[in-house]
Amino acid sequence: MRYFEDLQPGDVALGSSFVVERDEMVEFARRWDPQPFHLDDAVANAMFGEGGVTAPGVFVMAIRTRLLHDTPDLAVIAALGYDELRFHAPVRAGDTLQLRQEWLDKRVSESKPDRGVARSRLSLVNQDGVEVMSHIDTILLRRRNSND
Amino acid sequence: MRYFEDLQPGDVALGSSFVVERDEMVEFARRWDPQPFHLDDAVANAMFGEGGVTAPGVFVMAIRTRLLHDTPDLAVIAALGYDELRFHAPVRAGDTLQLRQEWLDKRVSESKPDRGVARSRLSLVNQDGVEVMSHIDTILLRRRNSND
Repeated sequence: MRYFEDLQPGDVALGSSFVVERDEMVEFARRWDPQPFHLDDAVANAMFGEGGVTAPGVFVMAIRTRLLHDTPDLAVIAALGYDELRFHAPVRAGDTLQLRQEWLDKRVSESKPDRGVARSRLSLVNQDGVEVMSHIDTILLRRRNSND
Repeated sequence: MRYFEDLQPGDVALGSSFVVERDEMVEFARRWDPQPFHLDDAVANAMFGEGGVTAPGVFVMAIRTRLLHDTPDLAVIAALGYDELRFHAPVRAGDTLQLRQEWLDKRVSESKPDRGVARSRLSLVNQDGVEVMSHIDTILLRRRNSND
């Protein structure tokens, strides 16, 4: 288990990878984000170039969330939110996305000194080294010697 | 179709609603965010009070995305990202979530005057009037007399 003290601003961790399956991506899009360019290859190719349908942004966020489960456990009390969430490049079927997390800063809670707040920059990078999504992630987590 | 000119800062629109089905929510959690409090009622009740398993944040974002498809068409060129994304209260099975969108500000693009950037505050409100999620949404969209 990693605690507040174990996080060092400047540290970068590469996580595991996820291969985007076309059927799952299109099924997800049909239910949650039925845009033509998520469902129809011809529409997507005309807008984004060859490669077929693109992934919904929220599907990319689902992949990010799944990959976070493979990282070493953190003593998280609460996720405090996302900032500066951006989609930088289309995601296509067959892409392999790897999680990257860079710790930015941290501070001890003023009101509850047994815990602290830490911010990281989370991103997904595809098989060509292109960053497809990034955001700032803020978490509340325990200090090593806290009791709860 | 609504264009840049049709958006007025200060306007608030209430969208349609979504009823959260337990089976779909838990299936989504099992695939994308298998936290114990998304899968096990007893764990969720101990953490968040009675009401059973809670919805993953990314499931709430999927509902938000689905509900946006029911709003009147906007001449969107691109979604530019999300800011200040926050989850304010747990979402439980059986909840009814309604989309709310308040337009904040807009400006014509300096480099391409046939388009503009508009920001809104998007949120989901449950059947008790509690806001469960909010974020700032930024879009690039066409002006009424543009040709493309």
